[in-house]
Amino acid sequence: MTEPVRRLCVIGVGLIGGSFARALRERGLVQEVVGVGRSRPNLEQAKRLGVVDRFTHDAAAAARGADLILLATPVRAMPGIVEALRGALAPKAIITDAGSTKAGVVRAIEPLLPSSVQFVPGHPIAGKEKTGVSASKADLFQDHWVILTPTARTAKPALQKVGGLWKQCGARVELMEAEEHDRVFGAVSHLPHMVAYALVDTILQWEKETPLLGYSAGGLKDFTRIAQSSPEMWRDICLENQEAILEAMDRYLQTFRKLRNLIKLKDEAGLKNLFIKARKVRKQITAARRSRP
Amino acid sequence: MTEPVRRLCVIGVGLIGGSFARALRERGLVQEVVGVGRSRPNLEQAKRLGVVDRFTHDAAAAARGADLILLATPVRAMPGIVEALRGALAPKAIITDAGSTKAGVVRAIEPLLPSSVQFVPGHPIAGKEKTGVSASKADLFQDHWVILTPTARTAKPALQKVGGLWKQCGARVELMEAEEHDRVFGAVSHLPHMVAYALVDTILQWEKETPLLGYSAGGLKDFTRIAQSSPEMWRDICLENQEAILEAMDRYLQTFRKLRNLIKLKDEAGLKNLFIKARKVRKQITAARRSRP
Repeated sequence: MTEPVRRLCVIGVGLIGGSFARALRERGLVQEVVGVGRSRPNLEQAKRLGVVDRFTHDAAAAARGADLILLATPVRAMPGIVEALRGALAPKAIITDAGSTKAGVVRAIEPLLPSSVQFVPGHPIAGKEKTGVSASKADLFQDHWVILTPTARTAKPALQKVGGLWKQCGARVELMEAEEHDRVFGAVSHLPHMVAYALVDTILQWEKETPLLGYSAGGLKDFTRIAQSSPEMWRDICLENQEAILEAMDRYLQTFRKLRNLIKLKDEAGLKNLFIKARKVRKQITAARRSRP
Repeated sequence: MTEPVRRLCVIGVGLIGGSFARALRERGLVQEVVGVGRSRPNLEQAKRLGVVDRFTHDAAAAARGADLILLATPVRAMPGIVEALRGALAPKAIITDAGSTKAGVVRAIEPLLPSSVQFVPGHPIAGKEKTGVSASKADLFQDHWVILTPTARTAKPALQKVGGLWKQCGARVELMEAEEHDRVFGAVSHLPHMVAYALVDTILQWEKETPLLGYSAGGLKDFTRIAQSSPEMWRDICLENQEAILEAMDRYLQTFRKLRNLIKLKDEAGLKNLFIKARKVRKQITAARRSRP
């Protein structure tokens, strides 16, 4: 059983930060939650909802005396925040994060930390298109994966502490190297978002010549959902995971051109074959999940 | 009020054909439904479910004496079917179809028909990834659009008859030119499917080198849903609407490369701007729907 957190400092009280606080609270795993953010209305809402006990715009003041600090802002804001609060950190404080990319976060944050402070990089795979504390909920992480990417510097007790808290929030915890994480999620998460953003942008440009949006049914609508995600978050992901995303996009371009060519050549068998293979992907996803350690 | 159909012949008793029969039946708008298909188990299921009164594999036998014939097979199967049944058609019989592409269907079918027979080309925008009669339901078309693309040869009473039946099934009926239909749906329906198929295929190829499927969360899963659609149907759509789909794919390639370039150049403002615009698309879709005639 994981020992409760005395004071949790959540920096970025949105969907993920708010849900983590709620999940710990609901299970009696935290005594006090201090929220930090830029938007006062969102923080006031967090207080009204009981997600935080108090809030401030000053990260250093909030981190003072906290035993656990969760960074849940867009990834590129994290190094500046750590720089601002590192002087206020209690000895033995643990910092963790919920960023969608990991290698850049580790590279930027680790050198800033006093040696007594632990950093456990993490990524809860539970994003949705809704943002802000009003979208947060205590069971957001139930049966979702949380990837932790400990470094050579991460001590085992800190890793176990953070991993234990996530498990008690209902999540399944898996350890990976930061670089591996970025390549995998560059493929299964970042690429699909780029593909969807490009589709929505194509239609929006085209709409200037021909009315199309009024006819959008199933196909396009599936894509507009994921294009609702936070623009700042996705800008940061693109900048932080540039290399893996470009590789994934180049692989995609190759396949897209292959499909275009099948259509151009009216290759009946090739088209049907590709569509039949694609149809099986859901079963393969289920099977791949089951076989994971 | 539209007069009831005495005998409806549904060729292809799947999601769309089955739902049309059910919708008319539920409203007392059809006296007898004859089903035609290739799969005996599916036709038996249609009979058990009360979707059809009887069935046969012989399109000509089924069409004999029918006042309305609905072609609800993949589009490329339609001309062969019409050739097989045209000798059996009652004078003043009306043929309509539910194909996802229209210009090719019109070109192939109209020349085959006796002058006394009417053809009202149509496209109900109500596909989903499920197939077969067991997925059909009487309210599938409720508040969905049905596009009819009458030709110079289509007589007004036949158009009104078919349009009236769709309206009584709860659908909103709109008239378009066949070519315009194909360009519009090449953009808002066929392109999204190609984009999704290419993504799924990219990940499936990549999976051979690196385990990825086990990590698929929100992003990829949205795409696997539309990749569940019927392979035969999508092969036919690609072949029939080749020109419009290639144009749409080329526009998409241009935008995808633009996005890739923003990432390559780490253009922070350009990326955020594109993501912000994309976020507004849902509201624009709702507004565009409201303003339609």
